[in-house]
Amino acid sequence: MDLAHKKDVYVKTLEERLTALLKNKNYPPVIYDAISYSLLGGGKRMRPVLLLAACEAVADDDESGISPELSETLRFNCALDFACAIEMIHTYSLIHDDLPAIDNDDTRRGRPTNHKVFGEAMAILAGDALLNMSYELMIDACIRHQYLNCLPALVEIARSAGINGMIGGQVMDVHTEGTTVDEETLLYIHEHKTAALIKASIVAGAIIGGAGGRYLKTFRQAANHMGLAFQIKDDILDVTGDSSTLGKPVGSDARNNKNTYVSVFGLEQARRDYQYMWDSCIQHFNELGAEFLAAYAKDLRDRVR
Amino acid sequence: MDLAHKKDVYVKTLEERLTALLKNKNYPPVIYDAISYSLLGGGKRMRPVLLLAACEAVADDDESGISPELSETLRFNCALDFACAIEMIHTYSLIHDDLPAIDNDDTRRGRPTNHKVFGEAMAILAGDALLNMSYELMIDACIRHQYLNCLPALVEIARSAGINGMIGGQVMDVHTEGTTVDEETLLYIHEHKTAALIKASIVAGAIIGGAGGRYLKTFRQAANHMGLAFQIKDDILDVTGDSSTLGKPVGSDARNNKNTYVSVFGLEQARRDYQYMWDSCIQHFNELGAEFLAAYAKDLRDRVR
Repeated sequence: MDLAHKKDVYVKTLEERLTALLKNKNYPPVIYDAISYSLLGGGKRMRPVLLLAACEAVADDDESGISPELSETLRFNCALDFACAIEMIHTYSLIHDDLPAIDNDDTRRGRPTNHKVFGEAMAILAGDALLNMSYELMIDACIRHQYLNCLPALVEIARSAGINGMIGGQVMDVHTEGTTVDEETLLYIHEHKTAALIKASIVAGAIIGGAGGRYLKTFRQAANHMGLAFQIKDDILDVTGDSSTLGKPVGSDARNNKNTYVSVFGLEQARRDYQYMWDSCIQHFNELGAEFLAAYAKDLRDRVR
Repeated sequence: MDLAHKKDVYVKTLEERLTALLKNKNYPPVIYDAISYSLLGGGKRMRPVLLLAACEAVADDDESGISPELSETLRFNCALDFACAIEMIHTYSLIHDDLPAIDNDDTRRGRPTNHKVFGEAMAILAGDALLNMSYELMIDACIRHQYLNCLPALVEIARSAGINGMIGGQVMDVHTEGTTVDEETLLYIHEHKTAALIKASIVAGAIIGGAGGRYLKTFRQAANHMGLAFQIKDDILDVTGDSSTLGKPVGSDARNNKNTYVSVFGLEQARRDYQYMWDSCIQHFNELGAEFLAAYAKDLRDRVR
């Protein structure tokens, strides 16, 4: 299997669908510009790739017990809408995070942040619009595809995006800024702010693919480990990475007094936990016969930026 | 029928449910405080009252063709969750509107605005949390009540809250700030920013109540007129109201160069349109046998603040 090629196909399919979704517009052009700027402005597209790949991994597996009558096209089209929705949620969270009142970031992915281009008011509204649009899209998909697995996938994503998921983590991060947090609080922030939505991408994809019972449980276990491992990798790279590859100065977290996995648990334990979580994640994907996901997880594990 | 008493019952039922919903919490206390402050801090509760009353109006009507097997309790419990959700959406929009980057308001309902108490970062996140929570609640209601009418009601609300509804109107309002708008643009702003969510409250309530076909269409017509008429009333009161009753100085819109129905169409036409829309709205509610809604519409028509 050619990982890079398959990943490119997922990303291309996603970006074409996102572009088409934004084109169906009766709304004021200025908000279209602000939304497109951030939503169609690149990025790894990790969450949608995970969702699409998890859906296909279930469909590909002879052992999963999925009814053959359930067409692959139906499942994939449904997963594609959910993949777009999860990228909208991720993008809204970045736009709001970058605002002067929160992280006050001027650049993202090498370009000025949304509020630097469109002003703070429009950036707040663009974030609100993207969050609402993600739900419009998923609800519409539930009705359009008339496919029973959509609703449980929607529950999974809604919970992970909200106050008991991503927003809860973000709140705790903002609330503890400038203080040194204990291990429990750091884990709360990481598991909610970053891991929850990554996890939901995999689990929602598997649900749409048709996974249930013990099969779905294994997806959940893999997803759990990947979410947290991804953040630990970020924190380790900030200490050990190469600033020219990373695109930002090494050690910026420490200089900004940010609480990271490394600052709370130390570099050695961070590396140990990180290794354990990736190994476990990859092993679960292998058990599931999810060849692409296992390869993609290895790719994320070994990334240098 | 005792309008005031029935309205109080709706409001009390709503506020008890909102309080209970917030109590089911595993999330950081600071976000609970910020959300409760705005969500449980009073207000007319107009949108939830309209939703609950529309649901009951259908259930009460012998001509509506609703199956008697569909228990009133089921419908009301489902409507109650949707009523809470619509109040969450309304509240999030107020918190974000009040932010320094948008309307920069220091007080609302006689108290400091959310960001004045909890800071801008927490106010942005409290708004995000409320919007997401409203969807979590409605999606959960769709599954919990296993009631087919929930999903179309959810579509109605999602569309009215988004870029083709409330957010679209808000974007246009922000975008045209400080300029004089034409009639078409003012109508776009009013119909989207204010009217869309009011309209969706009535229509979603009627759908949950079981209305369909021509019966639902009449609800839509009544709702259309009420949404716009409500905003025209606001604009007229700003010119002709009594500042002590109004709780804010008369003429503040004009002094702030705000585009209003009165500034664009003139006071005479505003009064004429307003009269026509309310009359039509009340007539439709009477046709539907919706006694409470007709009385409530009269009450809103005659309000002095």
